[in-house]
Amino acid sequence: MQLDELATPAALIDTVRLERNIQDMQQRMNKLGVAFRPHVKTTKCIAIAQAQIAAGAQGITVSTLKEAEQFFAAGISDILYAVGMVAPKLKLAATLIQRGCALKIIADSVESASAIIAYSEVHKLPFEVWIEIDTDGHRSGVNPNSEELLAIGHILNQHKKTLGGVMTHAGSSYDLNTPAALQMLAEQERSLCVRAAMRLRAAGLPCPNVSIGSTPTALSAQQLEGVTEVRAGVYVFFDLVMSNVGVCSTNDIALSVLTTVIGHQVDKGWAIVDAGWMAMSRDRGTQKQSKDYGYGQICDVSGKVIDGFQLIGANQEHGILSQVNPCDEQNITSRFPVGTQLRILPNHACATGAQFPAYYMVKDQQVIGPAVSRFYGW
Amino acid sequence: MQLDELATPAALIDTVRLERNIQDMQQRMNKLGVAFRPHVKTTKCIAIAQAQIAAGAQGITVSTLKEAEQFFAAGISDILYAVGMVAPKLKLAATLIQRGCALKIIADSVESASAIIAYSEVHKLPFEVWIEIDTDGHRSGVNPNSEELLAIGHILNQHKKTLGGVMTHAGSSYDLNTPAALQMLAEQERSLCVRAAMRLRAAGLPCPNVSIGSTPTALSAQQLEGVTEVRAGVYVFFDLVMSNVGVCSTNDIALSVLTTVIGHQVDKGWAIVDAGWMAMSRDRGTQKQSKDYGYGQICDVSGKVIDGFQLIGANQEHGILSQVNPCDEQNITSRFPVGTQLRILPNHACATGAQFPAYYMVKDQQVIGPAVSRFYGW
Repeated sequence: MQLDELATPAALIDTVRLERNIQDMQQRMNKLGVAFRPHVKTTKCIAIAQAQIAAGAQGITVSTLKEAEQFFAAGISDILYAVGMVAPKLKLAATLIQRGCALKIIADSVESASAIIAYSEVHKLPFEVWIEIDTDGHRSGVNPNSEELLAIGHILNQHKKTLGGVMTHAGSSYDLNTPAALQMLAEQERSLCVRAAMRLRAAGLPCPNVSIGSTPTALSAQQLEGVTEVRAGVYVFFDLVMSNVGVCSTNDIALSVLTTVIGHQVDKGWAIVDAGWMAMSRDRGTQKQSKDYGYGQICDVSGKVIDGFQLIGANQEHGILSQVNPCDEQNITSRFPVGTQLRILPNHACATGAQFPAYYMVKDQQVIGPAVSRFYGW
Repeated sequence: MQLDELATPAALIDTVRLERNIQDMQQRMNKLGVAFRPHVKTTKCIAIAQAQIAAGAQGITVSTLKEAEQFFAAGISDILYAVGMVAPKLKLAATLIQRGCALKIIADSVESASAIIAYSEVHKLPFEVWIEIDTDGHRSGVNPNSEELLAIGHILNQHKKTLGGVMTHAGSSYDLNTPAALQMLAEQERSLCVRAAMRLRAAGLPCPNVSIGSTPTALSAQQLEGVTEVRAGVYVFFDLVMSNVGVCSTNDIALSVLTTVIGHQVDKGWAIVDAGWMAMSRDRGTQKQSKDYGYGQICDVSGKVIDGFQLIGANQEHGILSQVNPCDEQNITSRFPVGTQLRILPNHACATGAQFPAYYMVKDQQVIGPAVSRFYGW
C-alpha cells in the first residue's frame, strides 16, 4: 500500500529508524554489562515489545496493570509494574501472579509496603516488591539515605523473597541538554540507587535487583557498577523533546503523523492540516526547551524535515502549519496545495502515539502489511 | 456499584449535571428560535448523543468521518462533518451518503469545491455542501465579504441542491472572559455568517442553512436573526476552561477523573495520585486564562471542590497533587492518606474524555449501570 492510500491523520513508524533505535540501545546496555528492561508504555504495542525482546531485552516495564495484562496475554511474563502499588490494585496484580506472570510491584512508603504484606497474609500469596528510590527529587520514591528505606525493607522482608530490589527513574533528565549534565545525573541516578541497595544489604536485607533508568540517562551513563538492569521507554521512537535534550537527532525519530492539507489562510501564511491536537496530543514538551517546535516539526511525505515550518497551533481536528520566521516569499497555497500529504514529527512520542489505535509500518514510503494495533485505557 | 470498586483512573460523568447541561442549552436554543445541532466530538458517545436528540437536538455535528460512521450506524442520520473536505475523503463520505446518511460536508476554497464537484460528476453522486465562513480569524473559512465566497458558491451551484448553506465557528470565544465581550463576538459570528448567506442569495445562489456556534457564543447570543441552527460541543460536560470563560461554574462540570492517592513527598507537600497526563490529557488550556488550574482542580470523592488544591504536575501515570499557595499546616499525608479516592475536574473535557475508552455514569456517588463506551481514532 502507498501512503496516499491511507486515511489521514495516521500514525506512521519508520521501520528502519525503529530497528536502529532498538539495536543501538540494546548494544549499549550489553557493553555496559547490564540487563535491559524496556518501558512499553511508549508503544503499548505487542509487536514492538516482541522486537525489543528479540534484540535482547530481558522483560518489560509497564505503567498500568492493563499493560501487564495485555503483554502477559501475549506471552511476556517478566514484568515490572513501575507505579506505586496501592491496596485496591493488589487483587488484579495477584490474579496475574496466580496465572503465572512474574510480576514485580513497587512501593515507596511504609503504608504501601504494609498494605502489600497484609494482603499477602490474608490471601497466602507472595508478591515480589522492589522499593522505589528517589534519586533526583522529580516525583516519587523514598530517600536513599532515609530511615524509611530500611523501615520499608524490614516490613517487606517479613515474608521471604518479597523484597526483590530497588528501582529508580531520574525523570528530571528530560530538563537537561548537555552531555556533561546528563552524565552527571546518570551517575547520580546510579550511585544513589546503588547506595540504597547497599544500605539494605548492610541491614541484613536482600536486594538482588538494582534497576535504574530513563532514556536520557541510559544513553549518557559512562559506567553502571552495582546496577543490574536499566529501563528506558521513549528511545524506541525518540521525539523532538529527546532531540532537544541532545540524545537523538530529528533523523532518528521513528514516529510521525501523516496529515493532509485541507485549506489555507493566505494572508496569514497558514496552511490548515487535518492533524490537530487529537492527533498530535496536547503535549507541548518543547515549549520550555531550547527549541520550541509548537505542536510538531513539518516534514515532506518522505519524512524529510522542512526547516522552519511547524504546526504552530492546533484545534481538535485542525492544525495550523506556518513558517515560524516568515522569510519565504512563496505563497503558502502554492507551496502546500490542498491535498498535499505531509508528516509531522511529535514533541512527545508517548503522548502522540497514545492518540492512535494503530500504527502503520513504513519503509521507503511503502506501507508494510496491515496496521499494527496498540491499546489504551486502564 | 460503589466508586471504591472502580479501578482508577476512571472517567466519571455526573448524570444530574449532564442532564441539566443538555436541557439548559436546548431550552435556550428553543427560546432563540433556532435548531440545535450538538457537536459530538466532545463525547464520541452514542448514549449521550441520543440524550441530546431526545432533548430536542436536530442532527449532530462531527469532526471526523469515523464519528459520522459510528453515529450513523447508531441510527443518527442528519450529520454535518465540520472539517474542510478534501478529495481523498470523498469516497468514504460518498459511501455514507449511498447508505442513506444525510451527510453535509463543508468547503472553504475554490480548490475543495472544485474537487467535490469533480467527484460528483465522475461518480454521479450529489453532495450537500455548506461553505465555511471565517467570522473571527481564528482558523478556517472564507471571508464573508470576499469574491471567493461567491466563486465557491457558483462552483457548487453547478449541481442542483449541492449548495446547502453557510456555517461558521467563532472559536476565538475561548479567549474571552466577560459577558460583554462574549455577546459582542456572538453578534459578530451571527452577523457575518448571515451577511455571507445574504450575499450568496443576492447573487442568485441558494443558501437555506445558516449554521453558527461555539459553546461560549451559543450561551451569550442575545438574538439570532437570520440563523437557522446553532452548534456547540463542550457545553454537555463543561470544564475549567469554560468556567474561566464565564459560561459555567465548577459545579456544572459533569466530567471528572476518579483517582487514588498512591504516595507522598512530605517535605514538598505533595501527594502522588494515579491520574497523570495519560488520564487528564496534556491540555493546559487554563494556563493563559485568569485562573490557572494546573492539570486540574482537586475535589473530594463526592465531587466537592477542595479549594486551593490542584494537580500541579503530571507524568504519564503519575499526578502531583499540591496546595497551590501552601497555608494549611496539616501534613499532606494525613490530609490525603495513601488509598484516598479523589476526583479531578479537567481543563478541557474534549481532551480528557478522549483518553478513556468508557465513562462511568454516577449519581449520588453510586455508579449507574455498566461503563458507557466511547470510541477514538480515525
